[in-house]
Amino acid sequence: MEIKRLSAQSWRFDPGVPVVGAAAVCGPKEGEGPLGKDMDHIFSDLRLGQKSFEKAEQLMQMQAARIALERAHLPMENLDFFCGGDLLNQLTPTCFTARTLGASFLGLFSACATSTAALSLAALAVASGAVANAMALSSSHTCTAERQFRYPNEYGSQKPPYSQQTATAAGALVLSRSGQALAKLSGVTLGKVIDIQITDPFKLGPAMAPAFADTVSAHLRDWQRQPEDYDLILSGDLGRHGSAIALELLKRKGIHLPEKQYADCGLLLYGEDDSVFAGGSGCGCAASVGFGHILRRIAQGELKRVLLVATGALLSPLANQQQETIPGIAHGVILEGIGNAAQEKPLDNPSENSSRIPFEGGNEDA
Amino acid sequence: MEIKRLSAQSWRFDPGVPVVGAAAVCGPKEGEGPLGKDMDHIFSDLRLGQKSFEKAEQLMQMQAARIALERAHLPMENLDFFCGGDLLNQLTPTCFTARTLGASFLGLFSACATSTAALSLAALAVASGAVANAMALSSSHTCTAERQFRYPNEYGSQKPPYSQQTATAAGALVLSRSGQALAKLSGVTLGKVIDIQITDPFKLGPAMAPAFADTVSAHLRDWQRQPEDYDLILSGDLGRHGSAIALELLKRKGIHLPEKQYADCGLLLYGEDDSVFAGGSGCGCAASVGFGHILRRIAQGELKRVLLVATGALLSPLANQQQETIPGIAHGVILEGIGNAAQEKPLDNPSENSSRIPFEGGNEDA
Repeated sequence: MEIKRLSAQSWRFDPGVPVVGAAAVCGPKEGEGPLGKDMDHIFSDLRLGQKSFEKAEQLMQMQAARIALERAHLPMENLDFFCGGDLLNQLTPTCFTARTLGASFLGLFSACATSTAALSLAALAVASGAVANAMALSSSHTCTAERQFRYPNEYGSQKPPYSQQTATAAGALVLSRSGQALAKLSGVTLGKVIDIQITDPFKLGPAMAPAFADTVSAHLRDWQRQPEDYDLILSGDLGRHGSAIALELLKRKGIHLPEKQYADCGLLLYGEDDSVFAGGSGCGCAASVGFGHILRRIAQGELKRVLLVATGALLSPLANQQQETIPGIAHGVILEGIGNAAQEKPLDNPSENSSRIPFEGGNEDA
Repeated sequence: MEIKRLSAQSWRFDPGVPVVGAAAVCGPKEGEGPLGKDMDHIFSDLRLGQKSFEKAEQLMQMQAARIALERAHLPMENLDFFCGGDLLNQLTPTCFTARTLGASFLGLFSACATSTAALSLAALAVASGAVANAMALSSSHTCTAERQFRYPNEYGSQKPPYSQQTATAAGALVLSRSGQALAKLSGVTLGKVIDIQITDPFKLGPAMAPAFADTVSAHLRDWQRQPEDYDLILSGDLGRHGSAIALELLKRKGIHLPEKQYADCGLLLYGEDDSVFAGGSGCGCAASVGFGHILRRIAQGELKRVLLVATGALLSPLANQQQETIPGIAHGVILEGIGNAAQEKPLDNPSENSSRIPFEGGNEDA
């Protein structure tokens, strides 16, 4: 596998790193949304029978990890390398998931951009030959993240209309040099930290939009491509306001991203549900939508090439209290179909070994 | 550069990734210790003239980054990739350092094992050809970490005798395929999460010791080496109790690590100073001692091959309140001399371009 540096931010993998396993799981509200049918597991309550929401988030991660491994026909003990993260201090759920998985582990924090940060690292590790296979995973949970970054949901606090709802969801991908590929990862554009001096902890879409525009424009420059070269350019969780700002910023850079070629994972996840205000947010958006719904459409040949750009707001409550700003970051990965092979083995037609996995949006708790 | 997978945890780089820049900086207490003479900068107070200790930690990181870049003769704008982390929630200091550096960025959290986690990733990125150069950095600060994980130092709380003092220190290394090498990084053994069910947030050395023993034994197995093949096997911050437990655990695995070949960065940093109780701790230990004192000895030909194993206790205050345990993790890297070339250009004999850098333990504030 050739790894080629295109710029300080972009690397190309040729012919691309095979994606051999994928899973997306979510909470009840997300399961009722328009993408519920593409979720591998929908938990019917936010606690998952656990004593705390943090333990529930960890269980949700494990469910995603188990399904992704099973779909990859990879026994847990054969997993070489695990990387990922979540929104919680010290990446608590992810560290405990790493304990269960037992693989070598690097924890990553890029706020809500962690899904593609982890995917970039997993792809680099597999493509370079350092590891035989790797799992990238990330998650968020509305009850753990909201109470850490803003107010506990139980307070019933007022929210400004530009606020977003942290998604309760997790997604995992398994990359491997062997096994049957569902899709391939053919390149990475890592983000830089971009700060436009926003300090309002509810205004995260606008805080992340410039990072999205920066990463997308760097990506198109490095690959010498136009937006039309992608079936879809997806942001992670910019929401309504962040999306509008991002498209305008791209326009000012001379890049016209047509609306039909653009979507936001946080908006796709909840559809027209306006109880989430300006849209969904959290690592779980890009992870569950990108590694679930979108990957499924790629594997089925419906989408040929997608640029998934998860976006993160580097909000620190402690720094915020010290009048510091909330910079943004966005990491992009190219996911592509592998041609006929993918269509011969659609995700909705599980092989014998993985028939225990609910492929059609199961709704049973673990 | 060949990258060879030796096991699920270990990769070998052949002929090794050149280390072209290095820096270690610290606070006043650490500067008074036995390694003060090998620090590139000693800050005379814990606030560095900043409004908060968090901002001070970030400034300390930047000082390490600037010296490492200068020593590498690499202008900041030519840095491709930056990775690293610290102990604070959301890696706040590191994210703001990434904003200043302007390079593509991945934030990592492996608690006090973050220094070698970042070094492993930076080496992989450079060795694979994905980036031309990379900086790995990590830091800790006693006033930011203690108040987040235990009690603010200002409380003057009682501490058990097995507690450790978080070091105020930072270290940075620059890896690059071009430039004059001070040393080389020839291999990585990533750690797994190992949990022996400790729940006392002061008992971190014992919580990390089994992870250290696990990583060291995996490393020796994968490279088919004995402890004697290393001039030094260094733990990051096991402290007195953790070190004793680690050596005993290795013995039970059939590995006799002679005392003269073993050292702990946290103990080296403070020497006989018993005001730090069982020793130093924090990302800053392995980063400042490993990337400063030890790298200097390697560059000068005094040490030929060192295994640096930073150790992390995955302590989460929130999980701790929920009666969860504190698992450990440890990541190892091999640092080696490059032979005569290194001796021709010792770190203490700066070239013209880097003569502004205090090589002999400067004690002026930034």
